[in-house]
Amino acid sequence: MKYLHSIVCALAVAAAPAAVSQTGQEDTTHSRQVILIIGDGMGEQQITIARNYLEGATGRLLMDNMPVRAAVQVLTIEDKPAGKPVYVADSANTATSIATGVITSPGRIATSAGTDEDLTTIVELAESAGFRTGLVTTASVTDATAAAFVAHISMRLCENPELVDEVFYDAGYRDIHLGGCPQDARKRGGPGAISEQLARSSVDVILGGGARHFAVRTEAGHGSVLELARAEGFHTIDNLEQLQRSQPGRPLLGLFASGNLPLRLQGEAARIAEKPKPSLLNRLHPYLGSVTLPETMACEPNPAFKGTPSLKKMTDTALEHLAADNDRGFFLMIESASIDKAAHKRNPCGSIGEVAQLEEALHTALAFAAKHPQTLVLVTADHTQAAQLVPYTSLYAQFPVPIYTPGHLARIETPEGGVMAVNYATNDFRREEHTGAAVPLYANAEGIGRVSPFLPQPELFAIMVDYLGL
Amino acid sequence: MKYLHSIVCALAVAAAPAAVSQTGQEDTTHSRQVILIIGDGMGEQQITIARNYLEGATGRLLMDNMPVRAAVQVLTIEDKPAGKPVYVADSANTATSIATGVITSPGRIATSAGTDEDLTTIVELAESAGFRTGLVTTASVTDATAAAFVAHISMRLCENPELVDEVFYDAGYRDIHLGGCPQDARKRGGPGAISEQLARSSVDVILGGGARHFAVRTEAGHGSVLELARAEGFHTIDNLEQLQRSQPGRPLLGLFASGNLPLRLQGEAARIAEKPKPSLLNRLHPYLGSVTLPETMACEPNPAFKGTPSLKKMTDTALEHLAADNDRGFFLMIESASIDKAAHKRNPCGSIGEVAQLEEALHTALAFAAKHPQTLVLVTADHTQAAQLVPYTSLYAQFPVPIYTPGHLARIETPEGGVMAVNYATNDFRREEHTGAAVPLYANAEGIGRVSPFLPQPELFAIMVDYLGL
Repeated sequence: MKYLHSIVCALAVAAAPAAVSQTGQEDTTHSRQVILIIGDGMGEQQITIARNYLEGATGRLLMDNMPVRAAVQVLTIEDKPAGKPVYVADSANTATSIATGVITSPGRIATSAGTDEDLTTIVELAESAGFRTGLVTTASVTDATAAAFVAHISMRLCENPELVDEVFYDAGYRDIHLGGCPQDARKRGGPGAISEQLARSSVDVILGGGARHFAVRTEAGHGSVLELARAEGFHTIDNLEQLQRSQPGRPLLGLFASGNLPLRLQGEAARIAEKPKPSLLNRLHPYLGSVTLPETMACEPNPAFKGTPSLKKMTDTALEHLAADNDRGFFLMIESASIDKAAHKRNPCGSIGEVAQLEEALHTALAFAAKHPQTLVLVTADHTQAAQLVPYTSLYAQFPVPIYTPGHLARIETPEGGVMAVNYATNDFRREEHTGAAVPLYANAEGIGRVSPFLPQPELFAIMVDYLGL
Repeated sequence: MKYLHSIVCALAVAAAPAAVSQTGQEDTTHSRQVILIIGDGMGEQQITIARNYLEGATGRLLMDNMPVRAAVQVLTIEDKPAGKPVYVADSANTATSIATGVITSPGRIATSAGTDEDLTTIVELAESAGFRTGLVTTASVTDATAAAFVAHISMRLCENPELVDEVFYDAGYRDIHLGGCPQDARKRGGPGAISEQLARSSVDVILGGGARHFAVRTEAGHGSVLELARAEGFHTIDNLEQLQRSQPGRPLLGLFASGNLPLRLQGEAARIAEKPKPSLLNRLHPYLGSVTLPETMACEPNPAFKGTPSLKKMTDTALEHLAADNDRGFFLMIESASIDKAAHKRNPCGSIGEVAQLEEALHTALAFAAKHPQTLVLVTADHTQAAQLVPYTSLYAQFPVPIYTPGHLARIETPEGGVMAVNYATNDFRREEHTGAAVPLYANAEGIGRVSPFLPQPELFAIMVDYLGL
């Protein structure tokens, strides 16, 4: 919780020009903006799977047409000072890398590994320098990626005041202890749970899910976190109609679902990847018998999505609010969160729909940048995920033995008439794991000369800070 | 077998300047070279796994420092004219894409899907225009990647005259028919098996493995394919000492192993990824009992590699031969083949060692390019592969149930003191599958303005053809 100016941050601040507004007049031509779009879990496998479905095997996504493309080295360390490398990240420590320029340990929200010091975020720097700021996500706004841009807490699951001391998972027959953030509680002089930190923040626009984390009482207990947010000046909304009607002028907090927003797409009849079913004989010996693979399926709209603001609609509103009468500029983070969340649940159609949502938000961002030339648009992922695009017909299909994944498999009928097989096999638990490959980074023309072909993830922070002159 | 000038090829030829040597004098400053380095199966997961081991989590590979980086869309179709997309490639059809600019079907070597027409390769175009050509690989020189730059045949396994009609796999209790290329046999007017096509080719340097495919009699039966190669003018060598002594002047065919060259690295005591071993109780119910994961291991030199020419040594020799007294230039393809072959066998240390080999060959190529300015160096992969970098400690480790991959797992001790977990789980067969994600492409500064951030794999052909003015 101590306030640490990281070395990267201190250097960036020292090197930045003293860029302050010279006049009170509106002069949007001098404003500078960063729009950072994060596809959670959106590695090369997820992108290719989505491209094949959405645009066809020879098609192109919008991000494919961006003029700058790089690879980002994802970095994580153990939870101690100078901890050894951890080769697979979580969304909390990667968001911390991007938001603060500092490598930290899994689960941490803008706090340092081992020493638990608060790390200055780009949102804080931008606010101090007079920029507006916004966070848009399809997850709970208290979830790791958005949280790390504003909040400082030792563990990502401490999303609301009821969870700040200890987090349990109700496994039915027993509670499982998942950790806690006792030292971060306000009663101990800490900044409190994530929702309470957001309610007290100076962020101009916060849009996403997570109403349940604002419905609980604050630590002080005088009312709900949502009431606190209102008292702190937020205009609060909770549905699509309100979103479309909302006018710039006041800080806006939109919470459109109890938890994460519903997925846009699902598998036919809500199917996800399934285990191939070997015959009894094949269970006795892998060279005998046969296997029944999951039936092929199309993707279809998820009925639960109806009435949910799309990522594009939230982005539209956020941009209106951030750009109105603003001669300084802004920082906006937009997350398509459930590429990852659907992959954890072995739901390839879910992930595909959320890449489509990201593409639409990107379209809006690029259109904005076309009208506001000093706008850096970045698209990246935080880490890679379990889904693998595998052969529909095994490379070894000539061999007269059943060949199939030991994990879960979905076989998706693509609109162009092919069948695409997607495999999930990092574990047999209820949720798949992340994986550790480098992730893509795309930029619009403002990124030329600023983004090198290969960069460590914390360098994203430095690029954005430098662009805004922070 | 019919000779098809593809549309891409025809356009490229039409658009190319009539670049012929103006004088007989040596003028190496005017020579142009393309050095194409292919890491077979070297997707982002393999690269990150290798980087973590070879350079450390925060380290950089040589390819990471190249000034141009793009993503390549891997494309495959069914084996019929205008076939539907196939979402996962094999090395034959991807090499055909790169070598000829034409998308084809799995298993095909520079022949068209369905119509089986021969596709003109960059090696053929380069030779016709007076450039020297070379192929270097750690696989058999008759294997798919190298073959597709020179040979034309309907099925990659027809590597020697004994295999041209039919290929069987001896499964012990029975033979398994894997296909054949009867229409390609010389006795039917075809070009013959791959080794025979290589022996009759005009390639200036061919280095790799595959001696057994040259030890068999030619179709005509007057002697071995190796004798044919000698009769056609090749100087033939078969060991490291000969390679180091070899002098430019004559076409060179070096075959340094019976099949593929041995891997440089292996797991401790030759271990590869292994199946986690669940307890009896865990077999009864996934929430019960425990699991024994494979012991961690280091990587170590593979004793069988001793005396094998490294990819770097072969590259050194190839460059000497191709550049000597050459005022026109050359095309050289260098393949680190066993990144893929080791991954098929669930051997992560094997793949890591072969990325290291690629890095060394790249070092040689970049040093050459530094002395010969008009040298385009490209590094890419043909397709992605099964290996996944997964968490050493599950994301869900707080849950008191055994969580482990249903596939094969290796836990590798890295030199920097971490443990890196690598998962293989596309199937439970003796060989893992390929996967379908886009692959990286790197270029030296000659690629700036020539390589766009995202390109279909066949465009690699067009870029190289254009660079050489073919």
